[in-house]
Amino acid sequence: MKIGFVGLGAMGQGMVGQLLQSGHAVKVWNRSPGPVEQAIEQGAEAAKSARAVAESCELMVSMLPDDHVIHKVLVESKALDALPKGGLHVNMATVSPGFARGMAALHRRLGSHYLAAPVLGRPDVAAAGKLNIVVAGVPEVRERATPVLETLGQKTWPVGDEPERANVVKIAANFMLATAIESMGEASALTRAYGIGADTFLEIVTNTLFAAPAYQGYGKMIREASYTPAGMKMTWGLKDIGLALQASQEERVPLPFAGVLRDSLLDALACGDGDKDWSAMAETTARRAKLDER
Amino acid sequence: MKIGFVGLGAMGQGMVGQLLQSGHAVKVWNRSPGPVEQAIEQGAEAAKSARAVAESCELMVSMLPDDHVIHKVLVESKALDALPKGGLHVNMATVSPGFARGMAALHRRLGSHYLAAPVLGRPDVAAAGKLNIVVAGVPEVRERATPVLETLGQKTWPVGDEPERANVVKIAANFMLATAIESMGEASALTRAYGIGADTFLEIVTNTLFAAPAYQGYGKMIREASYTPAGMKMTWGLKDIGLALQASQEERVPLPFAGVLRDSLLDALACGDGDKDWSAMAETTARRAKLDER
Amino acid sequence: MKIGFVGLGAMGQGMVGQLLQSGHAVKVWNRSPGPVEQAIEQGAEAAKSARAVAESCELMVSMLPDDHVIHKVLVESKALDALPKGGLHVNMATVSPGFARGMAALHRRLGSHYLAAPVLGRPDVAAAGKLNIVVAGVPEVRERATPVLETLGQKTWPVGDEPERANVVKIAANFMLATAIESMGEASALTRAYGIGADTFLEIVTNTLFAAPAYQGYGKMIREASYTPAGMKMTWGLKDIGLALQASQEERVPLPFAGVLRDSLLDALACGDGDKDWSAMAETTARRAKLDER
Amino acid sequence: MKIGFVGLGAMGQGMVGQLLQSGHAVKVWNRSPGPVEQAIEQGAEAAKSARAVAESCELMVSMLPDDHVIHKVLVESKALDALPKGGLHVNMATVSPGFARGMAALHRRLGSHYLAAPVLGRPDVAAAGKLNIVVAGVPEVRERATPVLETLGQKTWPVGDEPERANVVKIAANFMLATAIESMGEASALTRAYGIGADTFLEIVTNTLFAAPAYQGYGKMIREASYTPAGMKMTWGLKDIGLALQASQEERVPLPFAGVLRDSLLDALACGDGDKDWSAMAETTARRAKLDER
Repeated sequence: MKIGFVGLGAMGQGMVGQLLQSGHAVKVWNRSPGPVEQAIEQGAEAAKSARAVAESCELMVSMLPDDHVIHKVLVESKALDALPKGGLHVNMATVSPGFARGMAALHRRLGSHYLAAPVLGRPDVAAAGKLNIVVAGVPEVRERATPVLETLGQKTWPVGDEPERANVVKIAANFMLATAIESMGEASALTRAYGIGADTFLEIVTNTLFAAPAYQGYGKMIREASYTPAGMKMTWGLKDIGLALQASQEERVPLPFAGVLRDSLLDALACGDGDKDWSAMAETTARRAKLDER
Repeated sequence: MKIGFVGLGAMGQGMVGQLLQSGHAVKVWNRSPGPVEQAIEQGAEAAKSARAVAESCELMVSMLPDDHVIHKVLVESKALDALPKGGLHVNMATVSPGFARGMAALHRRLGSHYLAAPVLGRPDVAAAGKLNIVVAGVPEVRERATPVLETLGQKTWPVGDEPERANVVKIAANFMLATAIESMGEASALTRAYGIGADTFLEIVTNTLFAAPAYQGYGKMIREASYTPAGMKMTWGLKDIGLALQASQEERVPLPFAGVLRDSLLDALACGDGDKDWSAMAETTARRAKLDER
Repeated sequence: MKIGFVGLGAMGQGMVGQLLQSGHAVKVWNRSPGPVEQAIEQGAEAAKSARAVAESCELMVSMLPDDHVIHKVLVESKALDALPKGGLHVNMATVSPGFARGMAALHRRLGSHYLAAPVLGRPDVAAAGKLNIVVAGVPEVRERATPVLETLGQKTWPVGDEPERANVVKIAANFMLATAIESMGEASALTRAYGIGADTFLEIVTNTLFAAPAYQGYGKMIREASYTPAGMKMTWGLKDIGLALQASQEERVPLPFAGVLRDSLLDALACGDGDKDWSAMAETTARRAKLDER
Repeated sequence: MKIGFVGLGAMGQGMVGQLLQSGHAVKVWNRSPGPVEQAIEQGAEAAKSARAVAESCELMVSMLPDDHVIHKVLVESKALDALPKGGLHVNMATVSPGFARGMAALHRRLGSHYLAAPVLGRPDVAAAGKLNIVVAGVPEVRERATPVLETLGQKTWPVGDEPERANVVKIAANFMLATAIESMGEASALTRAYGIGADTFLEIVTNTLFAAPAYQGYGKMIREASYTPAGMKMTWGLKDIGLALQASQEERVPLPFAGVLRDSLLDALACGDGDKDWSAMAETTARRAKLDER
């Protein structure tokens, strides 16, 4: 199968590597040229534009940062119009449900197919082909994407026919990640105020009740107060909580934790932590309590 | 070593069983007689009062529900005054830091010793001797309690000399449990509003990013909407969040998630869920969003 | 001065009436024809389009509901392009700061002028010419609008040269109105739970500490549980809190109350109160506490 | 009528002054002697103890800071036992509903009467006899207190027979005051971030929609950032929000704004603002947003 791949960020690079390693032919394009060089070395073919990628493939994967960029790179550019009749676009990014609905409608109009397949996992997991992939689209389309999804992920989680569903699952999962960070931040500020270091406290909970990847990964960053390089930048974190707020508003679901998370992220951003990993949000409570000055 | 044990609730029963199985001699007392019968069958000796337990042992464990009950059963009754000179009281309950300070002071005055050793784990874990035990007290005292703690727990986590520290760790851990419940509740209400069942969503996250005991245990209850019998009653949950609020106030640490948790618990209690497991708090968001009526 | 007026909603109608009564010649246009008839009876002249209004006036007032509608009615339609060179557009609606910036830039490009002049006050106040008008724009432009603003308002509050400033003041004032409603809702739910009717409680506070128009107006609706006809629909209220959240996010200012307000509004909307006045949000707390069932 | 008065703080002093000016004979006692001197100069008679006050009067007013102090000064000391048979105790302080219930029960047992009469208004209002007094107790008892209440207040607001009701009204009113402060704090931080000074913004809203004593009084302190001397100390404010949280918990009423207020007060206290007026809480948001450093 001829595979196209648009978007070679931290996630996309590792994914393309996996596809090539598994013997797929992959044609790639990226907004900046650096990552393309690397992909070529690994065996990829470079295209001149997103449209050129679309023209020449049966299945195009895109891994772009947000609704806005996808719209610009794939819709405004008319790249999607160039997909062969019956072609398949697998969008693995985190987008809003409204955008997913719009993309599905556009593909129907163009005579091509759309699959939402956002992923759980950070860049190292992507590079190892161990992602968890949440997938939504009609069964025939999901089937067609199976060889690619099985190469990229350790497991695929189907959640229905409407693409937007996969995105809502991803948005809700990211919301849960943020609550885990905030929870560790508040709890360890409380214990610190009583003389127990965040390191001691987080070691206990992340090795017992909370012995899960989310807590151990972020817990380590918080314990070491080491937030660079960012796996997930604070500003992207705010975007994702924004997606949760927007999705919940559209369907009228109160989300009290999301409001708190928004404010903690803004507090961290106002402190100049915009380029740090979003787990730096865990420092908000300690800062408000002036623990460093006690 | 002669061990005394006061408080044979769901947790205490299993713990006494473990001590007996490991060959310790245990003298027990409980406010209601039922659980005492069972302990006698397992080989324990019954005492007529908490004071009688204290009189006859070198190390007395207590596992009572809260500050108020402990004060009544052990302090007002003068049971603690009856401990032999140099005797050791190991309090394994979840109490407030202020109460822990008071207990430590009382024991100093009485010439006995005090160790705070609250536990992480529910009744089945206690019965299997697999608890995680957070312990705070001076090293000599911790040392003396080691044989008992090693029988009851799979691991002991020391957090310093002042007993209150262990209690703050426990309070913070329970706060984190409650945030995990609320987080699952909000996230699954959001996904439900988009047609994805809580069962599907929670299966994905609790098998991937959140594959930890806390999420899997409570996640199962939420997925099955099965909240009885309660492992941790809603009313006890409110007590524990109250301890977090109180401890944070004493040391002036804002805890925005705790305010949300308090309100979700009150919402659930107002709905008549007081006797359910506190994970029923996860239904608050779905109820506010009227998801059952859509 | 030849005045144009676009947007004859509940607010706009009263404002046009005031302008006519004061002897101004006013040419009007509205998306739906009903209100135009009424304005004609009062002495206004009808135009065929927003563009026709713009063509023929020196100063055009618009009073349209939101960013989206204004964009469609005045920008996409090229109505603004038809303003005479040096013409002045006074936008009295509540818009986002970003939109205000965009409008100012557009007018600079077109050679016309832009003034932001959002108003404090409900339809009856508008009809009486007693609005408070917050105004932002360069002094010369403010000066030119003075005769119109003095006719429409009892007082004009200048807040600087950049139009967006007036909009932020208006957004912040509406945020404060919503907090007043939520505050009365929570406080009267609390007193009701102790047997004191909302009517009794709100009578006391709105005649003493909170004897202000905002509290007395909304307090009356809450005391009487009478939320129709809506002066400000719940759905518009949610839009306005959305503007506060967006403006605060743009400048990285945490706004904890705004998150609570968002959730209370969503709760009310999920209950089917979308067409009621936004003060119906005050019933959220009583509903969560199940006060009607006690 | 022989009147006793216990508690000559900032409020009590002014109230005693009013009673003396109106020709009442007043016997006073205070924990510290300073204010007693002043009262004697105004014509009061000093007593040696709270008990001595109680012994010699028909009606005893107390104006003490909180549950704890009242318990110590009037209950533990057995002062109340000394009231003549049928004597009347008018408690004008802000206490918890539970404490009010306890006091009413105690008086029933002692054969004396209890009236709850907390006040709305700050020290200058008290000194002018212009308080608003919320009163709860059986009608005969309310009647007996009328001459005193009419001297002290401009208006009396009866809310029922059970004394606790008056206290809940007072707690709810103070909760509303705190939300007004927080609301001004958040709104003016938002406008400041867009270049509009808090002074300008608060001038607009407190002269229009929010032209009420609560907003104008606190608004002035916030506009001038002048928080000393404190009319209501931050630490007392936290106590009062604690009463709201406690009262709401007892009756299972979620109060989302109260959680936010608690955290803002803790944030301010952690900043060292404990001795300032509680309106200094309004600076929390600006501090979190780092507005001073922009």
